[in-house]
Amino acid sequence: MAPVTLRGMAASEAVKRGAYRRLPVEKRREQLIAAAQDLFGHEPPEEVSLDDVAAAAGVSRPLVYRYFPGGKQQLYEAALREAAQELSERFVEPAQGTPTQRLSNALDRYLAFVDERAAGYAALLRGGCVAETSRTNAIVDEVRRRALEQILVHLDVPEPSPRLVLAVRSWIASVEMVSLTWLDQGRQPPADELRAWLVDLFVGMLGVTAAGDDRVEALMHTALAQESRTSPAGDLAQRLTRLGEPAAHLL
Amino acid sequence: MAPVTLRGMAASEAVKRGAYRRLPVEKRREQLIAAAQDLFGHEPPEEVSLDDVAAAAGVSRPLVYRYFPGGKQQLYEAALREAAQELSERFVEPAQGTPTQRLSNALDRYLAFVDERAAGYAALLRGGCVAETSRTNAIVDEVRRRALEQILVHLDVPEPSPRLVLAVRSWIASVEMVSLTWLDQGRQPPADELRAWLVDLFVGMLGVTAAGDDRVEALMHTALAQESRTSPAGDLAQRLTRLGEPAAHLL
Repeated sequence: MAPVTLRGMAASEAVKRGAYRRLPVEKRREQLIAAAQDLFGHEPPEEVSLDDVAAAAGVSRPLVYRYFPGGKQQLYEAALREAAQELSERFVEPAQGTPTQRLSNALDRYLAFVDERAAGYAALLRGGCVAETSRTNAIVDEVRRRALEQILVHLDVPEPSPRLVLAVRSWIASVEMVSLTWLDQGRQPPADELRAWLVDLFVGMLGVTAAGDDRVEALMHTALAQESRTSPAGDLAQRLTRLGEPAAHLL
Repeated sequence: MAPVTLRGMAASEAVKRGAYRRLPVEKRREQLIAAAQDLFGHEPPEEVSLDDVAAAAGVSRPLVYRYFPGGKQQLYEAALREAAQELSERFVEPAQGTPTQRLSNALDRYLAFVDERAAGYAALLRGGCVAETSRTNAIVDEVRRRALEQILVHLDVPEPSPRLVLAVRSWIASVEMVSLTWLDQGRQPPADELRAWLVDLFVGMLGVTAAGDDRVEALMHTALAQESRTSPAGDLAQRLTRLGEPAAHLL
């Protein structure tokens, strides 16, 4: 049997049993996914049942099965995929402004997602497993891969050194940890302050990496040349000069 | 019924059925845990069965149950706990040398654990779930908490600012990501090179955090005063001066 896409299956099933619908197919699907994200974001996946999702969405269990014939695993993956897709779209940033201004813009959208879609974000990153963990992990890894890819596009390095890739991935891991902690701690500090610090972290992590890797150093020169006094990198550079004095004995 | 410790249960069971033993109780227990760590490190936990563990250890399934009456979940948690305990012990470092020298020493032991106990380390961090994810997550979080605690001890900050805690936890998240990647990529670069870079990352992440947080800045002054020209921080400071020139237009 040829594979059928999830969307196609849900739609055709829903048309056949149209009498059961009150919401249009896509709206119902979105509603079920939102309910699933909310539950998976608050409970370990193994403690969420299809009945819970049906109850949260105010529909019957058979209706959930009509949209997700693969049951909980399919619904869980669909919930992760939807969150992953929407999050990844926020990474795309036009090639305008300095590199750290662009990073700030993308981070603002990222943190807005974390804020608005808290449960979906936590469900996505906390992952967990119902079955086939490798597939759900692959969904999260794809988000990270797309974040890395966008950063490399803006740094204009089609062939990054292994150390650069590791540094950017380290920063992405930090952003994830910080975002989850931010949600746990009642969204303190304010998002714009957190974003500014995460940009500082990026520059700091790339800066020390440049100090030990010629290719990253060359890239850093190119990137710094595009920065200005009023860009986030310029602002950081001015604040960092204050730290020069206590480090003078090391030179 | 009063709770019985795992160790007590395994021991008393083993005494009763002594005829089945060839290894002393503790050795057998260690062997089963090592086999479980190896399997859980290479396969998603849900795909590992008690039969697999028994086969890998060359023993019968009933023997595994004698040591771990709670079955796979108990064995899985015991495997995680053992790895967590041994890893955490490596964080303890005497208060000698500069802060970055101490961090280097602790990281050398950490990376040696990652190297020698690759499967156990991966199993610990990849976590996954069999059931009761919150308990297995708590084991990994406890390792992170102890790493943070040791770092704060050496930085001599009994009451760290929230930003400092976040910065150190970000670095710990980076170390984990980098260590898993290092294992995936055939342990390249060499451990000492990776360790030096991770120390640089720590200084860089704390440095930019100090540039935006008075309490971290004060701490940075105290820490830098303890560093020397030949310490890892001194070495980094000298390499970083090369980056000053391309950033001059930002000041």
